[in-house]
Amino acid sequence: MLGLMQEWPLLGYKIIDYAAAQHGQREIVTRSVEGPIVRTNYANIRTRALKVAQALERDGFKLGDRIATLAWNSGHHMECWYGIMGIGAVYHTLNPRLFPEQIAWIMNHAEDKALFVDLTFLPIVEAIADKVPSLKKIIVLTDEAHLPKDTKLDLVAYETWLNSVDGDFAWKEFDENTACGMCYTSGTTGDPKGVVYSHRSNVLHAMIASFPDALNMSSNETIMPVVPMFHANAWGITFAAPLNGATVVNPGPRMDGEAIYELLDTEKVTFTAAVPTVWLMLLNYLEETGKQLPYLKRVVIGGSAAPRSMIEKFQDNYDVDVVHAWGMTEMSPLGTLGSIKPEYMGLSGSEKLDLQEKQGYAPFGVEMKITNDENEELPWDGKTFGRLKVRGPAIAKAYFGGAGAEQFDEDHYFDTGDVAHINKHGYMQITDRAKDVIKSGGEWISTIDIENLAVGHPDVAEAAVIGIVHPKWDERPLLVIVRKEGKQPAPQDILSFLEGKIAKWWMPDDVVFVDEIPHTATGKIQKTELRKQFADYTLPTAV
Amino acid sequence: MLGLMQEWPLLGYKIIDYAAAQHGQREIVTRSVEGPIVRTNYANIRTRALKVAQALERDGFKLGDRIATLAWNSGHHMECWYGIMGIGAVYHTLNPRLFPEQIAWIMNHAEDKALFVDLTFLPIVEAIADKVPSLKKIIVLTDEAHLPKDTKLDLVAYETWLNSVDGDFAWKEFDENTACGMCYTSGTTGDPKGVVYSHRSNVLHAMIASFPDALNMSSNETIMPVVPMFHANAWGITFAAPLNGATVVNPGPRMDGEAIYELLDTEKVTFTAAVPTVWLMLLNYLEETGKQLPYLKRVVIGGSAAPRSMIEKFQDNYDVDVVHAWGMTEMSPLGTLGSIKPEYMGLSGSEKLDLQEKQGYAPFGVEMKITNDENEELPWDGKTFGRLKVRGPAIAKAYFGGAGAEQFDEDHYFDTGDVAHINKHGYMQITDRAKDVIKSGGEWISTIDIENLAVGHPDVAEAAVIGIVHPKWDERPLLVIVRKEGKQPAPQDILSFLEGKIAKWWMPDDVVFVDEIPHTATGKIQKTELRKQFADYTLPTAV
Ligand SMILES: Nc1ncnc2c1ncn2[C@@H]1O[C@H](COP(=O)(O)O)[C@@H](O)[C@H]1O
Repeated sequence: MLGLMQEWPLLGYKIIDYAAAQHGQREIVTRSVEGPIVRTNYANIRTRALKVAQALERDGFKLGDRIATLAWNSGHHMECWYGIMGIGAVYHTLNPRLFPEQIAWIMNHAEDKALFVDLTFLPIVEAIADKVPSLKKIIVLTDEAHLPKDTKLDLVAYETWLNSVDGDFAWKEFDENTACGMCYTSGTTGDPKGVVYSHRSNVLHAMIASFPDALNMSSNETIMPVVPMFHANAWGITFAAPLNGATVVNPGPRMDGEAIYELLDTEKVTFTAAVPTVWLMLLNYLEETGKQLPYLKRVVIGGSAAPRSMIEKFQDNYDVDVVHAWGMTEMSPLGTLGSIKPEYMGLSGSEKLDLQEKQGYAPFGVEMKITNDENEELPWDGKTFGRLKVRGPAIAKAYFGGAGAEQFDEDHYFDTGDVAHINKHGYMQITDRAKDVIKSGGEWISTIDIENLAVGHPDVAEAAVIGIVHPKWDERPLLVIVRKEGKQPAPQDILSFLEGKIAKWWMPDDVVFVDEIPHTATGKIQKTELRKQFADYTLPTAV
Repeated sequence: MLGLMQEWPLLGYKIIDYAAAQHGQREIVTRSVEGPIVRTNYANIRTRALKVAQALERDGFKLGDRIATLAWNSGHHMECWYGIMGIGAVYHTLNPRLFPEQIAWIMNHAEDKALFVDLTFLPIVEAIADKVPSLKKIIVLTDEAHLPKDTKLDLVAYETWLNSVDGDFAWKEFDENTACGMCYTSGTTGDPKGVVYSHRSNVLHAMIASFPDALNMSSNETIMPVVPMFHANAWGITFAAPLNGATVVNPGPRMDGEAIYELLDTEKVTFTAAVPTVWLMLLNYLEETGKQLPYLKRVVIGGSAAPRSMIEKFQDNYDVDVVHAWGMTEMSPLGTLGSIKPEYMGLSGSEKLDLQEKQGYAPFGVEMKITNDENEELPWDGKTFGRLKVRGPAIAKAYFGGAGAEQFDEDHYFDTGDVAHINKHGYMQITDRAKDVIKSGGEWISTIDIENLAVGHPDVAEAAVIGIVHPKWDERPLLVIVRKEGKQPAPQDILSFLEGKIAKWWMPDDVVFVDEIPHTATGKIQKTELRKQFADYTLPTAV
C-alpha cells in the first residue's frame, strides 16, 4: 500500500523558486571581481537563472551535459548553478588553485561542454582551452565593457549572452535522482575523483544543513560563505541559504583578513564559514588593528581541524560562538557539527574547549560507524579509534567513471579515509587520515593530536607529524616544525611542552625545523610530499 | 545522467534509529493514564518499538495492514507508531472525541486489523468492537496488573505482549512511498476522509518542521506537544522531536490548565504547541493563581485562529513568544508559520500583533496560491482574498478510497477549502472557510475577521458569524454571541464595539445571544449546525 501524498520531486531549482516567492527581496551582496560591491536579491537571481537556462538550451546544451564554472562566490555564480541545473545539466565547479594541467585533466575527464569563468581566471583558461576538446563555449562572468579583446579565445560576455534571451522559460522536469552538480576531490594521491551530486541529495543536504543544531539557517541570518563554491559544494550554503531566505554576503576574490573584516562589519554578517587558514588571517588582522566583531554571532570552522587556540580566541576575545565541523566533498559535504547537546550545556573554559576540539556529532541523515581493519564495529567510548565510515542520502556511492570502488563496503558505507573516535554522546574526533596514522608496535598514534598540541607552543607557526621507519617499532613519529618569525626554540623546548599532554609512547622521537611545510591546493598539509622529503631520514632512536 | 549518491530511502523508522544513536539518553516524559509521571528515553523507545514490530509480525500483521491507535500522547504511543511502521504497516490514529459510531465507521472504512488502546478508551472499544469485523487484536497500553478483567473483550496487556518477543529484530525495507500513517479528517459535512501519509512525506515533513523559522527544533528544547497524536499527525512533533533529539513531555490524558501548568513548570518545558482552547484554559489558570512561566520560551498556536488577546497575553504578561501556525490534516499538517522575517523585525505593540494575527508564511516544501472562482491566481497584496491552494511533498493528492477528488486541481494543487489573502512578504491570513464566507452583493465578507474582533469585547465569551439569506444582497452577516457569565451586553454595545474596526458593509445586520455555540469533535465552531439553527431566521434588514 502506497501513501497518498503528492509527487513533488526534490529538484534543486525549487529552492530558488521558493526563495524568490517567499524571500524575494532578501539580498545577495558580492565583492565583485571588477571591484565594487554589487547587490542583487533572490527574485533577481531566479529571473536571471531562468535566462541562463534558456540561453544554455538555445545554445544546444541539454540534460546531463557537464557545464563547468571557474569562479569566486558571487550572485552570478549562484545564478549559473541554478540555471545550469534548471535544464538538467550539471554544474561542475573547478578549483582554480589546482595547476592548469590538473584542471585540464579534470575537464577532460568530466567532458565539460561549456565554462562560466571569472575575469580573474582567464589566464588559466588561456593555458588550457585547446587541451579540452569537449569545450564548446566560454562565457565570461562580466559585461561587454570588461570583456578582454586581446585574446585568442572565443569569449562571450555573460551579460550580453543573458540578454540575448527573454527569460520566458520554465524549468525542465526530470527524476530527482538526476545529476545536479559535480566536484572533483583532489585527495593527496592519485588522480582526482569526481563526486556527482543529485538533485535529491542537494535538496536533502540543504534541509539537513538548515537544522537548528546544524548550520541553524534562518531568514534573519546574514551569511558569509568564505568557503568557496568550488570547494566541496560550498558546504551546502548555496542551497541552504535560499531555502531559508538568509541574506548572503560573498567575499568574491578577496579573502585576506582586512577584506573579510570589512564585509563582516559593513554588511553586519551574523554567521560565516571557512577553513582555519582564513580565520588565522582574520584573527591576525583583528589583533593587529584592535578591531572587534560586534555583529558576528557564529563561525563554522571545518575542512581541517580547528586549533584549540583559534576556538578560544573567537569565543573569549570576540564573543563569537564556534561550531567545529567535519565533512568531505563526498558528503555534500557536511558530516558532523559541534553544536552543544544538553549533556554538555553549561561547560565553560577548558572543558568546553575539550568538547569543541572534537568535530561534533552527526545530524539526521548521516549514519556513522568506526571499524577496525577487520571491518568490525568499535565502541563509542571516546578513545578507541578506527576507520570512520558513513552512510546517508547525500553521501557518494561511487565516483564518476567508477574510480575508487574500494572505498565502499558491503553495507554501503563509504570509507572516509579518516581515523576517528566517537564518545558516548556521539561526538566524533578525527585523529588522523588513515594513510597518515603511525603504526608503532602494532598500536596507532594520531598525528593530528600531536600537531594540534605542538601549534599551541608560542614559538610554533605550523607543525606536521609523519611516521619514520624504525627497526624495532615499525614506525615512530617525527615532528616537523615551522617556527614563528624571529623565534628559535630548541627541539627539547617543544618536546617538554608536549610532555604530560600525550601518552609517553606517542612522544616524537625527533623534532626538525623547516622553512615551509608543503600544502595541497585546498590548504591541507601534504604529507605524501613531506614523507618523500624525509624518506632517507634516520631517527636518533633507530641507531 | 544520474547522480552518484547513496540510495537511502526516507523511511520513518530511521528517525528513531537516529535518535537512539545520537540522543539515546534524552527523555520522553509522560503523565500516564494510570496516574504517575513515567520517564523513558529514545534508546528505550527504539528497543521497544522493535519489539512492537516483532510481535506484530509474529501475530501475522504485515506490510500495508492498518493498525489503529486510540491513545493519548505517551512514550508508549510513540513506540507503537514506530513499531507499526517498522514492518511497513500503517499507524492509524483514531480520535476518541468522535462519537463511537463515527469511530466504528472510520475503522471499517480503513479496515483496521489491530488496535492499541489506552485504558481510558476501553468503554469506546466495548461499544464498537463487534461492529468492526476486520479487527483481530486489541492491545491495551498498560501492564497485566491494570488490565481489566470484567470485560467481554479479548484483551492483551501491552507489556505482556511486548515481553513475549526478544527484540532481536530488524526493520523491514520497502519503498519510501509506502504508506506509513493514516488520519481521518472529520470535516464539518459529509463522511470522514482518510489522509494517508507515506514514509517519505513524514520524513520530509519532519525535516521541514525542524527549520529554525518553522518549529526550530533543537536537542536543547524540551517540547510539550499538547496537540494530541490523534489530531493531524501531532503536528509532526512525533517525528521532528526525535529527528533533532529534543526532550518530549507528554501531557497524557490531562489537558486542563492546572495539569498543563504543572508539567510546564516541573519539566522546564521550553516549547509547546496546541489549539487556542487549551491556551485559554492555561491563561485562565495563570490569571487565577498568579503563576508565571519562567522556562517556557515559545508557544505554537494553530488548529484555529489565535485570538489577538491571547497572543498579547503570552507575550506581554508571560514573556513567551507566540508562533501562530496554520495547517491541515491533509498537509501533514504544517502549512504556514508566523516566524518573523527581517522585514518585520523590530515591530512591537499593535503592529507586531497585526502581523502575528496572520497565520504566517510557508516554509520550503509548501507552495501556495490564492485563486478566484475561475481558478485564476490572485495578487499577494494583503487584501484580495481567494481560495487557498497548496502543493508540496507532504500534502495529500487524494483521500483513501478515492473520496474528495474535486479538491485537487489540474496543476496538482490541493484546494484547502480555506479563503485567505497573502501579503507582499508572503504572510497569509485565513479570512474564512470557503463554505462559510458570506457573499453579499457579489463581494465576499470574512466571517472570521468579525468573530475575532467580537471576542475582543469584554463581555463576549464566544462569537460566530453566519450568512443569512437576504432579498437584496443575497446574504448578510448575523453575529451569534455567547456572553460571559454574569454579563448582559445589548446588541448595540457589540455593534458599536465593531464600528470603525471593519468596513461599513461588513457590519452584521443583527446580533443574537445564545447559551452555547455548537462545536465539532476537534473543537471548531460547527457552522453547518448553526446555520441549521438559524435557517428560518429573518434579518431585521430583510423586512
Ligand atoms: N574539522 C576537520 N577536522 C579535521 N579534518 C577535517 C575537518 N574537516 C575536514 N577534514 C578533512 O578533510 C577531508 C575532506 O576534504 P575535502 O573533501 O577536500 O573537503 C576529510 O576527510 C578530513 O580528512
